Amino acid sequence: MGTREELDVLLAIHSTPARRYLKSDPIPDETIRVILDAAIRGPSGGNQQGWGWIVVKDLEVKQEIQKFYLEGWERAYGYQKDEILNSTGQDGLGKRNFLSAEHLANNLAEAPVWVIPVLKNVNQSPRAGSSIYGAIQNLMLAARSFGIGSTLTTLYSAYEEEVKVILGLPSEYMTMALIPLGYPSKGRWSQPKRQPIEEVTHWEKWGQLKNT
Amino acid sequence: MGTREELDVLLAIHSTPARRYLKSDPIPDETIRVILDAAIRGPSGGNQQGWGWIVVKDLEVKQEIQKFYLEGWERAYGYQKDEILNSTGQDGLGKRNFLSAEHLANNLAEAPVWVIPVLKNVNQSPRAGSSIYGAIQNLMLAARSFGIGSTLTTLYSAYEEEVKVILGLPSEYMTMALIPLGYPSKGRWSQPKRQPIEEVTHWEKWGQLKNT
Repeated sequence: MGTREELDVLLAIHSTPARRYLKSDPIPDETIRVILDAAIRGPSGGNQQGWGWIVVKDLEVKQEIQKFYLEGWERAYGYQKDEILNSTGQDGLGKRNFLSAEHLANNLAEAPVWVIPVLKNVNQSPRAGSSIYGAIQNLMLAARSFGIGSTLTTLYSAYEEEVKVILGLPSEYMTMALIPLGYPSKGRWSQPKRQPIEEVTHWEKWGQLKNT
Repeated sequence: MGTREELDVLLAIHSTPARRYLKSDPIPDETIRVILDAAIRGPSGGNQQGWGWIVVKDLEVKQEIQKFYLEGWERAYGYQKDEILNSTGQDGLGKRNFLSAEHLANNLAEAPVWVIPVLKNVNQSPRAGSSIYGAIQNLMLAARSFGIGSTLTTLYSAYEEEVKVILGLPSEYMTMALIPLGYPSKGRWSQPKRQPIEEVTHWEKWGQLKNT
């Protein structure tokens, strides 16, 4: 099993940015198991656990799916390249994240392991993800404690039907994300940049911010 | 600020079950801030951070919303009481979780702090939650390191419009969950019970399970 760093949970949370520059070095299966065993401790509505976790390591399969991802990337962000590279501010991608996300789109298949979580009989509600994305966060935090970087992506999702065929996924399941995992080749375990909590915390009612 | 336990991230993940028996003892605002500052390190699509975090401590407001929650509980689970109390197996609520969830439904307003995360311009996709539920998992793990229990709930959500009015929420926002926080009055930081990973991990393609 890969080496794991003991890491306080708050430190882990504050040092798990999206890592998009990943080496192709393999990840031991046993490490993947430990990471998934952490993932599934996350919540699901009524503890139904309607999930499956597909681990993809086959390069050809990854390359096939990467084509869809790259098209999704181009339509969502790629076409805005000039605009984003000239923007400022802490919301949105920003220059550095744009370039790393572009790198990921072009090199997705190089990540040694992908995890594709799927969910059964998903209702068409924006809250449906409450039964999977908490578990995915567990996955990314557990990976981080092994020095393994990850990113939560969904850019392939306009090609859901094609991806389902490639994975052999039954019709009642839906892919919820594609998480490339790998040891980082560039970057740091830096704190994810966000708007300060004072600007997004409302006390008792919407709009009641306070700075103390 | 409340006392915090240094806790390895994997241990935290494996010892954060839903905690539904909560004391009404107050939680310091500074602790709430630290917990929310961990939450917002979570991912959101394109790092848009279209979120807000409403902290509710006012007992009357909580009691008003609890009425909606209780109706949601009754319709989703309460009416199945006999059936669930006689069921076995590791998926679904199970007897012990049913009783604790029933307790929560009846005592929700007693939890000293609720956090209600909201999201702007949510698209009607089951993947929309990828921009909030990871952050909510961070919140629950950070709370756990302060010895504060939580549960991810959405049972109030049939009354979204009523809750929005109570919170003064603008129409372009949607509540994504209601998370009661409090120091536990009963129970343990036990490992959340789940189906074993061997049964939910598929290698390369759907259906390819392996036990080694």
